[in-house]
Amino acid sequence: MKQSIKIQWQGTMLFNADTLGGNFKIDAAEEVGGQGNGVRPKALMLTSLAGCTGMDIVSLLKKMRAEVDNLEIDVTGELTDEHPKFYNNVHVEYRFYGNQFKKDKIEKAVNLSVERYCGVMEMFRQFAKVTTEINYIEKA
Amino acid sequence: MKQSIKIQWQGTMLFNADTLGGNFKIDAAEEVGGQGNGVRPKALMLTSLAGCTGMDIVSLLKKMRAEVDNLEIDVTGELTDEHPKFYNNVHVEYRFYGNQFKKDKIEKAVNLSVERYCGVMEMFRQFAKVTTEINYIEKA
Repeated sequence: MKQSIKIQWQGTMLFNADTLGGNFKIDAAEEVGGQGNGVRPKALMLTSLAGCTGMDIVSLLKKMRAEVDNLEIDVTGELTDEHPKFYNNVHVEYRFYGNQFKKDKIEKAVNLSVERYCGVMEMFRQFAKVTTEINYIEKA
Repeated sequence: MKQSIKIQWQGTMLFNADTLGGNFKIDAAEEVGGQGNGVRPKALMLTSLAGCTGMDIVSLLKKMRAEVDNLEIDVTGELTDEHPKFYNNVHVEYRFYGNQFKKDKIEKAVNLSVERYCGVMEMFRQFAKVTTEINYIEKA
């Protein structure tokens, strides 16, 4: 299967991005010649990773009847110092919100995504050391 | 340098993404349980690549005094058939719009981005065969 996206320059460092399912603006930070009026392109890699594994997990938890109230995923990427700057260390924190967590199923879902299903994770493994962390936040 | 992003589940396959410089929604296509109300997470990898190399090039062309009227970049990624599905072939088309193109400088700028500066390109090279193409569209 092929997927295509397009970007179009808007002057300075600003681009319109026309991506599967939506449009948004991409811009650089002010310190590198942009105006900060759009998302930073490199960080979209981290968002791609979070979205890919997040969709796997909510879908698996539904099948396993182990749904949670909410899920937040934070991804932090550490860039190399030298050009070309790439993410060599990436940490993914999964935060599950709810009560009476079925932790064995939740951990199984996370592992299935990380090790087998998430294609973005597979791509990241080729250039980064990826670590994961699971946290549970009980509803008061 | 570290960069962080966050996503938060909104039910079904929908997530809010809070990314450096902006917010947007991520959703799956209807055929895989989503409602198509946001960008597809995997395609964000392709947008990241386009934005990274695009910013390099407009910035280099400015320094080289070889600016163009416009620049569009199309990126097409071919996914593997088996899980985890990743982009194993990626094609980047640069379309420069204008007149009296300084083609030697433009091609130098593209090559500098592809081979030296673009960190996203460096990450893609670890899992995909990346090909590039330059086209010039003369103003009528």
